[in-house]
Amino acid sequence: MKKFMNKAASMVAESLEGFVSAHDRLVVFGSDRKFVRRRHLTPGKVAIISGGGAGHEPMHIGFVGLGMLDAACTGHIFTSPTPDQIVAAIEETDTGAGCLLIVKNYDGDLMNFEMAAEAVTGRHGIETVIVSDDIAVPGPPRSSGRRGVAGTLVVEKILGAAAEARMDLAGLKALGDRLNTRIRTMGVALDGVTVPDTARSTFVLDPDEMEVGVGIHGEPGLSRQKLADADTIASMICNTILADIDLQNTDRALVVVNGFGGTPTPELYLIYNIVRRLFEAKGISVARSLVGTYVTSLDMAGLSVTLSLLDEEGLRFWDSPVSTAALQWSSPEI
Amino acid sequence: MKKFMNKAASMVAESLEGFVSAHDRLVVFGSDRKFVRRRHLTPGKVAIISGGGAGHEPMHIGFVGLGMLDAACTGHIFTSPTPDQIVAAIEETDTGAGCLLIVKNYDGDLMNFEMAAEAVTGRHGIETVIVSDDIAVPGPPRSSGRRGVAGTLVVEKILGAAAEARMDLAGLKALGDRLNTRIRTMGVALDGVTVPDTARSTFVLDPDEMEVGVGIHGEPGLSRQKLADADTIASMICNTILADIDLQNTDRALVVVNGFGGTPTPELYLIYNIVRRLFEAKGISVARSLVGTYVTSLDMAGLSVTLSLLDEEGLRFWDSPVSTAALQWSSPEI
Repeated sequence: MKKFMNKAASMVAESLEGFVSAHDRLVVFGSDRKFVRRRHLTPGKVAIISGGGAGHEPMHIGFVGLGMLDAACTGHIFTSPTPDQIVAAIEETDTGAGCLLIVKNYDGDLMNFEMAAEAVTGRHGIETVIVSDDIAVPGPPRSSGRRGVAGTLVVEKILGAAAEARMDLAGLKALGDRLNTRIRTMGVALDGVTVPDTARSTFVLDPDEMEVGVGIHGEPGLSRQKLADADTIASMICNTILADIDLQNTDRALVVVNGFGGTPTPELYLIYNIVRRLFEAKGISVARSLVGTYVTSLDMAGLSVTLSLLDEEGLRFWDSPVSTAALQWSSPEI
Repeated sequence: MKKFMNKAASMVAESLEGFVSAHDRLVVFGSDRKFVRRRHLTPGKVAIISGGGAGHEPMHIGFVGLGMLDAACTGHIFTSPTPDQIVAAIEETDTGAGCLLIVKNYDGDLMNFEMAAEAVTGRHGIETVIVSDDIAVPGPPRSSGRRGVAGTLVVEKILGAAAEARMDLAGLKALGDRLNTRIRTMGVALDGVTVPDTARSTFVLDPDEMEVGVGIHGEPGLSRQKLADADTIASMICNTILADIDLQNTDRALVVVNGFGGTPTPELYLIYNIVRRLFEAKGISVARSLVGTYVTSLDMAGLSVTLSLLDEEGLRFWDSPVSTAALQWSSPEI
């Protein structure tokens, strides 16, 4: 393991400090550095709050800003933030319209966000949207075991825009739950993750192997397979996604090809090029795309493909202005 | 070597096609796919053209768009684009005010851009700005041996904004040459680069080694040293940069911490956190920053630090709106 760091124990705090310092016109630390929040809050807008373990950057701190999150709580690497952090974020960002919590479907995150929500009951209006887009988990469709992975950024972008448009808490909760049923993600890794604390890789692959159906915490995937070419990998991912989702004629698709941290951008574009064609060959209208490194697993070499089926409202919220460290556009790419 | 690809020979073309397809509201291919250009050109504006070998993405194609480049020519991996490609870019993007070529200081790039410029003499006004910001090359200051590395993005952003403000060709040439004297970069790698064609790493480091003073083509650096902690690495980089540049009281600094492709963003922010303090301790006012993966060397683990000393005009052009695949802001982070 070689990393740019001083000590593993202080790595997250040092990196967060650098992040806030680099983006100090956009974000500030909350009290006691328990979370990162927008520098300028908007009175009367529902606050959108997310968070999770460190090691997935730029998610979630990179999504704090106009049109997306109001606050992000970061735990230690691959470890949920504490209820204490989440309570502080709620208390300091609720400007009167309540808070929507966006939580990735992991036991630790669920438990701590729920404890935080209970702790503020009566003082703050709270709703929670759970993201569970990862189809590479055995079990029935939409089983509670499905993890929240790269689709989380789609939910955060669209709900963030809806909140900016003054959608109320109940509306955001309903929109988020509906969105979650229309987003599917699958990931493939070419190598495991080296966790700074242990200095060990979470799984080891031979030079001719890949790990199919991985999450973003270094856990092994569904199966270990022989390394294949990009066409074969893309086809396997698309077919698995399409077998799991009901297509409706009116939907238009947002396709996200997301790198896990150690995969260069050109490889992501290469995969996007294949995936787009495969989806279009199935009659899907790929209306929007996002290709880059957004939801990571430290330095893992690998990528995921996310298919999000959006209606006109969803597309409009996706296109709405966003100004965060990791996503920025006024009108998208014009 | 494990990469998401089909064949090494088609990797660049497939990836470029994915890029253009993902950003089709922003860019289009030039004729015969010789280059990537803005979808919408601005009559009467000097065209800003750059290019170089593939393997450095998002540079340069990711910088094509409003406020930055009009066209980018991509060669094969770590190989200059041909004069033919550059001539086509000039002919198709010059809307009457001439073209400024931004060229990284490598023999192959210099030769091919110069041949292209000669080929269009008399038909197009051409000026060339050569970027040579890498101080980790032996020889006298500003020697012709200094490579163009991450500082190139600073030159492209600022000249792109100046061109958008209708600065003329002579003004852009003078501004670019002046800028190049005020930008310094130094890089460190934790591992070598695996080139798809050869499937071999360009250099191999032991687990406790780092390569200091690397460029972006997998060439070995100035020296191989024992791996050090982040404080030590940052300090060495900053001291080397500061020993090479004259500070003036009125300057304000833009600091770029750039990942080479295989280094996760949190490590870049961690280094930024240290670098900013070290520069400020020397009396430098760090007015702007950019932390991310912009000028890469395929999947190399490593990073570079770029110090750019800017006057008010330079800062204003840095802050000007930009809308490209890799850099986007309307007003920076507000």
